[in-house]
Amino acid sequence: MMVPAVLVWRGVVALAGLTLAAEGLYYLMRYLERLRERRPRVLFFPAPVTCVRPLLLAAPGRCDCGLSHRESALSSLARLLLSARRSLDVCVFSISSQELSSTVLVVHGRGVRVRVVTDSDFMALACSQVGTFRKAGIEVRHDQDTSYMHHKFALIDGSVLVTGSLNWSAQGIFGNKENVIIIKNTDIVKAFVQEFEQLWNEYDPTKYSFSPQK
Amino acid sequence: MMVPAVLVWRGVVALAGLTLAAEGLYYLMRYLERLRERRPRVLFFPAPVTCVRPLLLAAPGRCDCGLSHRESALSSLARLLLSARRSLDVCVFSISSQELSSTVLVVHGRGVRVRVVTDSDFMALACSQVGTFRKAGIEVRHDQDTSYMHHKFALIDGSVLVTGSLNWSAQGIFGNKENVIIIKNTDIVKAFVQEFEQLWNEYDPTKYSFSPQK
Repeated sequence: MMVPAVLVWRGVVALAGLTLAAEGLYYLMRYLERLRERRPRVLFFPAPVTCVRPLLLAAPGRCDCGLSHRESALSSLARLLLSARRSLDVCVFSISSQELSSTVLVVHGRGVRVRVVTDSDFMALACSQVGTFRKAGIEVRHDQDTSYMHHKFALIDGSVLVTGSLNWSAQGIFGNKENVIIIKNTDIVKAFVQEFEQLWNEYDPTKYSFSPQK
Repeated sequence: MMVPAVLVWRGVVALAGLTLAAEGLYYLMRYLERLRERRPRVLFFPAPVTCVRPLLLAAPGRCDCGLSHRESALSSLARLLLSARRSLDVCVFSISSQELSSTVLVVHGRGVRVRVVTDSDFMALACSQVGTFRKAGIEVRHDQDTSYMHHKFALIDGSVLVTGSLNWSAQGIFGNKENVIIIKNTDIVKAFVQEFEQLWNEYDPTKYSFSPQK
């Protein structure tokens, strides 16, 4: 049986139309997904005391420490830092949390460029992990005046901003009422990138005075 | 001279079309403006030492204190708080800044409902403005445990969120490296409204214990 040519053409046109519509829908969904991803998210603390060690292993593994390993604000924060592929810029008043400093060390160990800006007062405390960072080869810069470098933010690949009230300490994570906001790919992220680069340049060790104000 | 009816009609239709197009453009511009307004903004500190007293006067006036009165991160923050019409919910670890506490008092004096949540440790310091707030009739609630109520955010009319690393102190405003983000009308604002209400309820004085942990 012969199919009339006009019907064949109609079929071809319908198929092309459907393909185009499907493709359009696919791109619309991806666009909406990107818009959704750009929306800021928030993590509230204190987090329940959980162990994040399995996240830091080179290969999937388990941990028999007896603590809970369920998702928490802390594991969400660690996962975000671990998502860095090219750079991790950390700009925090205090860095003493074992969990977060281990996370930063793992990111550095993967060959990601890690830079840390911190406060010289807090850095002088025994609990500070700055020494461990420096031993591992991570460059750390700090202020040199009597005020505090009081920011608490990090930039992942220069495109994701993590910022809030949270000091990177055990008390901050497990004790205090704190918040951390996650913002992606917006002008605000660019403003924080600029702030980081400005501080990185301002705190360049070649510019240190031999008679610091502190 | 008579104008042909068809030309009159064409003119009417063209005019109606133009009016509709202008109106459409107006709404599109307003929509884009609203979208732009929703974008987060950031204020970086330290701010230059300026005087914000003229902002706090009941009628436009000037101040002869000799300090600069130009716009700064501090005046932007004060203006935001002063824009409250129905409610101002402040949730800050420390409140000792004369400028920001005066601003809160002015907002309260205008009949706006002001609520303050703060940390009991910082509240005990001589520089805290909590006593002044309470004398003025502002309700203040605080934590009662050994951790800190370390948030640094405020909610204006339940729809604008001001949050960041900034403690509301002179050192925070004029000395430290700090940031404050302003976010409008998004899910994240709702999450902070919820957090505030939860703390407000948790710190209800009727629930205080007579043997606090602190």
